[in-house]
Amino acid sequence: MSQAAFHYQGEDLWVEGVSLAELGATLGTPLYVYSTQALKANFQAYQLALKNQPSLIAYSVKAASNLAILHLLKEEGAGSDIVSGGELKRALQVGVDPQKIVFSGVGKTAEEMIQALKAGILMFNVESAPEMRLLAATARELGKKAPLALRVNPDVDPQTHPYIATGFRESKFGVPIEEALALYQEATADPYLEVVGLDCHIGSQLTSVSPFAAAAERLRALLARLAAVGVNIQLLDVGGGLGINYHGEEIPSPQELVQAFGELLAAYPGLRLILEPGRSIVGQAAVLLIKCLYNKVTPFKRFVITDGAMSDLIRPSLYGSYHEIKPVRAAGRPAAKVNVVGPICESGDFLAQDREIPLVESGEFLAVFGAGAYGFAMSSNYNSRPRPAEALVDGARFRVIRARETLEDLTRGETI
Amino acid sequence: MSQAAFHYQGEDLWVEGVSLAELGATLGTPLYVYSTQALKANFQAYQLALKNQPSLIAYSVKAASNLAILHLLKEEGAGSDIVSGGELKRALQVGVDPQKIVFSGVGKTAEEMIQALKAGILMFNVESAPEMRLLAATARELGKKAPLALRVNPDVDPQTHPYIATGFRESKFGVPIEEALALYQEATADPYLEVVGLDCHIGSQLTSVSPFAAAAERLRALLARLAAVGVNIQLLDVGGGLGINYHGEEIPSPQELVQAFGELLAAYPGLRLILEPGRSIVGQAAVLLIKCLYNKVTPFKRFVITDGAMSDLIRPSLYGSYHEIKPVRAAGRPAAKVNVVGPICESGDFLAQDREIPLVESGEFLAVFGAGAYGFAMSSNYNSRPRPAEALVDGARFRVIRARETLEDLTRGETI
Repeated sequence: MSQAAFHYQGEDLWVEGVSLAELGATLGTPLYVYSTQALKANFQAYQLALKNQPSLIAYSVKAASNLAILHLLKEEGAGSDIVSGGELKRALQVGVDPQKIVFSGVGKTAEEMIQALKAGILMFNVESAPEMRLLAATARELGKKAPLALRVNPDVDPQTHPYIATGFRESKFGVPIEEALALYQEATADPYLEVVGLDCHIGSQLTSVSPFAAAAERLRALLARLAAVGVNIQLLDVGGGLGINYHGEEIPSPQELVQAFGELLAAYPGLRLILEPGRSIVGQAAVLLIKCLYNKVTPFKRFVITDGAMSDLIRPSLYGSYHEIKPVRAAGRPAAKVNVVGPICESGDFLAQDREIPLVESGEFLAVFGAGAYGFAMSSNYNSRPRPAEALVDGARFRVIRARETLEDLTRGETI
Repeated sequence: MSQAAFHYQGEDLWVEGVSLAELGATLGTPLYVYSTQALKANFQAYQLALKNQPSLIAYSVKAASNLAILHLLKEEGAGSDIVSGGELKRALQVGVDPQKIVFSGVGKTAEEMIQALKAGILMFNVESAPEMRLLAATARELGKKAPLALRVNPDVDPQTHPYIATGFRESKFGVPIEEALALYQEATADPYLEVVGLDCHIGSQLTSVSPFAAAAERLRALLARLAAVGVNIQLLDVGGGLGINYHGEEIPSPQELVQAFGELLAAYPGLRLILEPGRSIVGQAAVLLIKCLYNKVTPFKRFVITDGAMSDLIRPSLYGSYHEIKPVRAAGRPAAKVNVVGPICESGDFLAQDREIPLVESGEFLAVFGAGAYGFAMSSNYNSRPRPAEALVDGARFRVIRARETLEDLTRGETI
């Protein structure tokens, strides 16, 4: 649905009411271009799926953390799923209600706990016994009670890339579901901890609801055992993980995701459901706009060398991800099988390999689709390249929401 | 040799005359710690290997580009191998003589060419016919003559990770050696181009000189053909690529590397040899100092969760690289097989997997070895994590050469 915001008008690719060729000429490349309409539509699909369910949609800040995006989603009603003090600061900076913030992650520091306790967030998703004990000690020092859920590891196979699968029992995430009961009882007995929820997140870029359904079954069994010993769970955080269509994948809707938890929710009508979508909100709401620098043809391979590189979008190199690439001007032209590569001095620097795409000339723009999630968020200055600018389109208007870095930015903080 | 700078004094790990525990307590973690002594020793090994050879050692800036490191190496006599306008600015900023700068890379832009032409660099390593034509056009506009080498692709197997192998004929780098002659003749005929050199770089982290010897043979044949048609080559740039001992690899010395080109150099005594070492200068000259946050033990796996993450050092995740990890305090303690992981919310965030290391407590420091090359240079703000500080030790003194990023740094340039 979100891709409707990106469409050809005649032969030119537009985002909403703005021509990408014009954007590239005005703001330069590489450039991340987000669509307001797509962001809103993707968020609203979750709202619709949850309209009859007490719930909170906590946007997963790590997917794309630009302040303008966080602010836009906050205005739509989103909370924040954060994983660091830096993300907490971002969420508070755009005015997210602390009571809509959940704090996940296996390596929370005492400093981060203090910041979050002082802010008064809704819930810490605690991932280990030592973390729970540090949280209790930290809350005690502040004279506060820390609201928590245990993140349990249900040991289900999310059928996704190993790097973004988190629900296997061998992963670093969560506590084994068999150990949760004892830890909950320890938490209940601690005057500085307040059990409020149960959390689970099994992975990212899921293309089927069956792993969610498997997780739901295990969560339901745990909820029953917790109820039996008087542990009161009000918030059920089932994480994020819904995939997007990068390359023809059939993706379940938010509605289908919620339905996977339908029986559980029916059995516990008092529960408030928390979802932590990230990729499915922002992934297809942006393209990375790049420019062809050279067409390089050798007897062995054809390369489209662009000004976009692995430093701008590392997903193809790191995960072997597929991102659709289309010319911004679609004028009837021959296609050829090419490698789309960047200027960085390693063979790992590619955006597509052995891909049939229409040929463009030097100076022409290409759009890399599905670049909104884990795109700019994972960018680097490798090869002393300034990071791209980010722009947000809204109807016929656009604005820069993050300035392109300058060469001066690269050496900030360094001393000879 | 360089690892001598990192040594245990009693039970404590020191770098030169500074205790790493003290550094971590003073400057915080994660922290890149470089040794002046190791940097100099590694550089001097190249100087020694080249002492009877007209030569230039152009340090590969992309490996570690901190201004203090560039300045230190410049003072030792190094030039710079650069791959972007950002790296050019860095080299010039620390006072590298432009006549010691070579500019490599497949995606040079016209703007970068202009900057380099104005600076008066020694040589452009040109990687394709269209790039050569753009260089000629750009030089013409400036009324200058662009000094160039063609980077040829010798089609040899460097026997390294596919992402850092660059000498296969299917790679994006260089021009096929069979096409070089015609391009050289085109360059010779162009009034705005000046042929000065021949360039070749076959890959990174090489652990044998035989691929260099294979490349030398092909370069020699090409030099003979060029001489026969009157193309005058003064500079022979054979790139970098010497590996380091990450995990017990036997690494050839700079001396052995130079010897691989011995017959060629004997046949062309007028040639000036250019080497572009990066990893072998800085790789083992630094550790990434990290702190244990939690020991997490599940029935299935044991984790050491640290404040160092894939955002600080992506090599294990991206290349499957092995980096030795040792406790900063070696007090006799049991070892166990663990995964060393960071706080980032993906399973790809690890520094070591299934690794037997001595167990440390929360709050204790660990050193990740061999972190100097492609460490900080590839770091990111993923999960809104500030990038680490960098410190340089010299004898008993140390200083911060790049300040730790703050949370305020993370949102610079963003507007709600």
